[in-house]
Amino acid sequence: MARKSLNIGLVGCGFMGRTHSNAFRQADTFFELQQKPVLKAVCSRSPGKAEKFAGQWGYDSSETSWQAMVERDDIDLIDIASPNDTHHDIAIAAARAGKMVMCEKPLGRNADESRAMVAAVEAAGVANMVWYNYRRVPAVTLARQLIEEGKLGKIFHYRANFLQDWTISSDLPQGGEALWRLDKAVAGSGVTGDLLAHCIDTAMWLNGGIDEVVGMTETFIRQREHQLTGKVEPVTIDDASLFLAKFANGSLGNFEATRYARGHKALYTLEINGEHASIRWDLHDLHRLQYFDHADEGRCRGWRSVHVTDGEHPYMDRWWVPGLQIGYEHTFVHQFADFIEGLANGTLASPTFSEALATDLVTDAVLSSAETRQWKSITY
Amino acid sequence: MARKSLNIGLVGCGFMGRTHSNAFRQADTFFELQQKPVLKAVCSRSPGKAEKFAGQWGYDSSETSWQAMVERDDIDLIDIASPNDTHHDIAIAAARAGKMVMCEKPLGRNADESRAMVAAVEAAGVANMVWYNYRRVPAVTLARQLIEEGKLGKIFHYRANFLQDWTISSDLPQGGEALWRLDKAVAGSGVTGDLLAHCIDTAMWLNGGIDEVVGMTETFIRQREHQLTGKVEPVTIDDASLFLAKFANGSLGNFEATRYARGHKALYTLEINGEHASIRWDLHDLHRLQYFDHADEGRCRGWRSVHVTDGEHPYMDRWWVPGLQIGYEHTFVHQFADFIEGLANGTLASPTFSEALATDLVTDAVLSSAETRQWKSITY
Amino acid sequence: MARKSLNIGLVGCGFMGRTHSNAFRQADTFFELQQKPVLKAVCSRSPGKAEKFAGQWGYDSSETSWQAMVERDDIDLIDIASPNDTHHDIAIAAARAGKMVMCEKPLGRNADESRAMVAAVEAAGVANMVWYNYRRVPAVTLARQLIEEGKLGKIFHYRANFLQDWTISSDLPQGGEALWRLDKAVAGSGVTGDLLAHCIDTAMWLNGGIDEVVGMTETFIRQREHQLTGKVEPVTIDDASLFLAKFANGSLGNFEATRYARGHKALYTLEINGEHASIRWDLHDLHRLQYFDHADEGRCRGWRSVHVTDGEHPYMDRWWVPGLQIGYEHTFVHQFADFIEGLANGTLASPTFSEALATDLVTDAVLSSAETRQWKSITY
Amino acid sequence: MARKSLNIGLVGCGFMGRTHSNAFRQADTFFELQQKPVLKAVCSRSPGKAEKFAGQWGYDSSETSWQAMVERDDIDLIDIASPNDTHHDIAIAAARAGKMVMCEKPLGRNADESRAMVAAVEAAGVANMVWYNYRRVPAVTLARQLIEEGKLGKIFHYRANFLQDWTISSDLPQGGEALWRLDKAVAGSGVTGDLLAHCIDTAMWLNGGIDEVVGMTETFIRQREHQLTGKVEPVTIDDASLFLAKFANGSLGNFEATRYARGHKALYTLEINGEHASIRWDLHDLHRLQYFDHADEGRCRGWRSVHVTDGEHPYMDRWWVPGLQIGYEHTFVHQFADFIEGLANGTLASPTFSEALATDLVTDAVLSSAETRQWKSITY
Repeated sequence: MARKSLNIGLVGCGFMGRTHSNAFRQADTFFELQQKPVLKAVCSRSPGKAEKFAGQWGYDSSETSWQAMVERDDIDLIDIASPNDTHHDIAIAAARAGKMVMCEKPLGRNADESRAMVAAVEAAGVANMVWYNYRRVPAVTLARQLIEEGKLGKIFHYRANFLQDWTISSDLPQGGEALWRLDKAVAGSGVTGDLLAHCIDTAMWLNGGIDEVVGMTETFIRQREHQLTGKVEPVTIDDASLFLAKFANGSLGNFEATRYARGHKALYTLEINGEHASIRWDLHDLHRLQYFDHADEGRCRGWRSVHVTDGEHPYMDRWWVPGLQIGYEHTFVHQFADFIEGLANGTLASPTFSEALATDLVTDAVLSSAETRQWKSITY
Repeated sequence: MARKSLNIGLVGCGFMGRTHSNAFRQADTFFELQQKPVLKAVCSRSPGKAEKFAGQWGYDSSETSWQAMVERDDIDLIDIASPNDTHHDIAIAAARAGKMVMCEKPLGRNADESRAMVAAVEAAGVANMVWYNYRRVPAVTLARQLIEEGKLGKIFHYRANFLQDWTISSDLPQGGEALWRLDKAVAGSGVTGDLLAHCIDTAMWLNGGIDEVVGMTETFIRQREHQLTGKVEPVTIDDASLFLAKFANGSLGNFEATRYARGHKALYTLEINGEHASIRWDLHDLHRLQYFDHADEGRCRGWRSVHVTDGEHPYMDRWWVPGLQIGYEHTFVHQFADFIEGLANGTLASPTFSEALATDLVTDAVLSSAETRQWKSITY
Repeated sequence: MARKSLNIGLVGCGFMGRTHSNAFRQADTFFELQQKPVLKAVCSRSPGKAEKFAGQWGYDSSETSWQAMVERDDIDLIDIASPNDTHHDIAIAAARAGKMVMCEKPLGRNADESRAMVAAVEAAGVANMVWYNYRRVPAVTLARQLIEEGKLGKIFHYRANFLQDWTISSDLPQGGEALWRLDKAVAGSGVTGDLLAHCIDTAMWLNGGIDEVVGMTETFIRQREHQLTGKVEPVTIDDASLFLAKFANGSLGNFEATRYARGHKALYTLEINGEHASIRWDLHDLHRLQYFDHADEGRCRGWRSVHVTDGEHPYMDRWWVPGLQIGYEHTFVHQFADFIEGLANGTLASPTFSEALATDLVTDAVLSSAETRQWKSITY
Repeated sequence: MARKSLNIGLVGCGFMGRTHSNAFRQADTFFELQQKPVLKAVCSRSPGKAEKFAGQWGYDSSETSWQAMVERDDIDLIDIASPNDTHHDIAIAAARAGKMVMCEKPLGRNADESRAMVAAVEAAGVANMVWYNYRRVPAVTLARQLIEEGKLGKIFHYRANFLQDWTISSDLPQGGEALWRLDKAVAGSGVTGDLLAHCIDTAMWLNGGIDEVVGMTETFIRQREHQLTGKVEPVTIDDASLFLAKFANGSLGNFEATRYARGHKALYTLEINGEHASIRWDLHDLHRLQYFDHADEGRCRGWRSVHVTDGEHPYMDRWWVPGLQIGYEHTFVHQFADFIEGLANGTLASPTFSEALATDLVTDAVLSSAETRQWKSITY
């Protein structure tokens, strides 16, 4: 029996356009999807760019106007992989046009934008999802399973860092197509929305809601040439962002993100300490989970380095054989496969727009706390 | 201008059929191939299996007779991913039919088979390649670059292990479709041809030819149920294989492979020690290269853990951004991209059948040495 | 020529009494001390305990009253290794008696006590030192050298944790001889003075003064049996303490200490990120320094794991041969050897009482910030 | 009640003289020895050297003739820490004089010497021990406990390396006081007796006897200036030595030692793979044991990094608190404490001369195999 098609229209041909497109293709080969993803159209403002991308990735057609794509009858789902300042308008238009919507994180540039986006998809009753891909690293999904099963017991501490070093040079310009993440008007914020948002999303998924925060941000290099104007202009984003937090379950949080940590390319590290066990993970060796179980016999107790590549590990039965690791892009494949499965089950894959809004509420509180030098409570 | 097509006929729908098929698809998306790979046909002895595989991977057609596939005019290249006992006949028939031939390693079940295969492709003048995929792990390719540039200086030692633990249970049967690697009649040998062959291929690529060896093999579990006969039968393969070697450049080799190393799933480890620098790598963290440079200032000298994910690292400009690792299957993608580039350049991607024969000469010598308890010289 | 003797009177026979005593003995064997340390007397309140300790460690005599020991003419130096609530009185009395004073950290239970102690030694003009032993881990001393030489360039981030897990059980009592660290009246505070004090001392030694902090503390288990009263009583100490900081040089600090981090025994970790290089170190592998130098050639750039055991590494020419690691207690040996050398040079070994006071000012600010939920500035 | 004294006469003031002397002193402080070690005399051929050493380490007297020292009535035990070519004569003379004898490893320069030494101590009925100190690394002792308890089950593989890099420079001379290990006449052999002997001793202690071996040795730099003659002379020792082995229990051994492994200072690594569990350890992080237990739940199974610093770990109740590591020299302290305890128990601490002879039989066989290019059986 032929599967139903799911016609996808992608907005954005950058880094995330590539990871999403790969996910659509690979998920259909490695998973048994109930619907067949069809790469129907891709859209980019720059003429020629979408066309070239369509050729490379196998999209049937290309567009230069997302508005036009949103209106097309032959498209079931709009996937937003364009810069943050476009998320709000595209998502709301897509929802109003009755399309399913998937959106790259963060949802909006701030919680106000995100709230409107949530309202739109809920009013329209359309399926929706935000690409917080790190939840689908098999090691992280395994961490979630172990926590859900109670193996850690009462949680005392949660610690997460996201450390990069690519903006240390003062010669690096800001803004424009390649460097919009350094332009607050486009990105919404600096590392807070770009990197800490990942840490917060995973943290709340693993450890529940955050009640209050106190934060500190810094912009180390205060002015850079702007690629759009060609002039040296003030840097508007936060280069580093740190905060302390109290979780609803009583545990303490310690979060930090920066693009000035020499030696770290994309070192997202998390650790959670419970009464009975602890877990560590980092993105530079994403196929490993560090696990300490206090129930082990004392003499032989130690952190276990679990090579998360066995058939019994989350998602890994779909790939190769034990010992053979997967990479970064697979996390998107997993998330898309879960999205399709969610459509079949009638349960939306997590995080939905509504769930992702919670992260934006925390990032807003962090930025506000840094500005006012006060603790901030978060109401969801 | 439209690219020329390269019509591929794949034999075998198992583990290697999957890695090769993925390579054809991903290479055409992530690399700019001069020819367009077309998945024309897939062949499996079991009716239905090839058909299902074709559906999943996007092959245009399926066959149950490799002989029939080899005769098809619409196929340019035969890719052999079926068990070792089929390599010889298929490769020779394909060469005689004027097809290019790619063959999963090891080339033949022994050097005699391999020699005949080399003769066939050379007589036919067809392009050919053997899938020793670990050469195309970016970290391993980087190792080769550093060695070629002379950074290590004179080489003293080469050490390689391939450690697995999946056959420790005596309840595991042998033979049949899933476990043919445990059946000498099909596989040619045990870990010597399966695992040590990888170690030897990389070793000779990095460090030149091996002159002589002394080896030792063991079969720990001497009889197992055979899946084809249903009877308990003697185990014919080697479970473990170790050898000492002298390289032509005067360095000393130490090689070991086993499927009885509890705790290791697929731990292929190599180390090379030179006068000025040393290199280590292992498959369980394939995206890292360990590098020690004696030229570093003494106080700060130490093994560097290089996260091989930057754009300047081999092949990595094709994938994501620094810090984001790739996985096992990418090594096949790289090798296929190199094969296509070789066709355009007129230089066959390495290793060719002829180059891969050298590895079989060493494995033959190891097995012979283990049997006769003598040192064995190797003549290429 | 006979060396001058330095007659030592030790107060306290616990864990720190042992580390200091070992330091006196080993320093005289492994270093060429300008003065000969003589273990003259040891003092403990419990009769019999000091006597037994004297026998084991080679002290000439024992006392049960520190006041008596301080008055002895045959003693040149009072070393305080008794619980924190005794530091203030003993140090001041010793200074007034004209003795040199060495004091285990933290100096006082709070900055007020410490300030009085500083005043006393300065008024008396006696040599003084506080045992912040981790400065003398060879890897940490090496870190200081590299930073002083400018190898890191401008500093952006400093991060330190001190993670333990020994108080997680609610069955653990508090107070008394063995567990006075859990009793605020004796210890002054919980992990803030016990563990964070180490992190702060090293941080300011490596990265300069801290200008302001915002902190958070928690007491996870709110009541425990008290060993002295035998009753269940409120727990008065902080079990966990975290703070964010701004250093005078503009860098950002992130500090955390806890005794509820399952899986970590005494994991003191520090990291410092500079423009050109970064450094990491941790106490669980204290003989290694992690060093990342951006000046390394890009392809081969990675964190170097420096095995700090060579003759050119700080202090290591005194011990064994390259590759052979030293342990925890050696840090005290080094500090004592430096103290003696400082006496000969006329430059007091660091940290003096005055320098150690700075750490207490920071811990006081952290505790105050946690209580008032405000940022606190520190004036030295 | 006063303890009985044990009057020690040490021969040799080099590296090993220091480690032994430290052991005598520290054992008496950290362990509760039934006899009191008294540092009675130290002997060195070079006048002045023994005197200086005596002053530094607290020996009562010094000698320049070991023969004289052996005859002294006030000495109970002769400890041999002088170059290998002196072991035989001193040990036999000491035994004949009725002294207990402790000897640095290897026992003799070859098995013939060792056999005579065994005969002498057995004829004299004197206590005796060889300093194979790595057995008393707490992590290695723990490994032995786990193996003895059957936690590994049937053993399949034993692997050991001892890798150094300090003789790579061709400018390094050979021979003389500092470099006698490079002179076969003095040392007996090169890395085989110096480094492999350690690997073999531990291997047979953990895994039982070795039945047969096939080996290969190499001398990379064939001539060096000799420090005694001042002339360039042939290098007589083996720079590298590798062998394959069969243990009596059916497991396979792989051994390698070299001083040409750039990047490794003293990397003694061992691994043992059993049916149920595996163990790894290395000297560069000697306070850790890697342990893999297949009985762990599959999802969370991984190599455990055991920080061997708890009170329940072998010997560690004598030192500090959990998390605080010890160093290299402690292994000698442990061995000496065991020796004293053995005297009290009437059971000689292992390895005795007789047990250590077994190692020399294996090293002789390895060297003979390398020369004859034949497998060699070993009869104990």
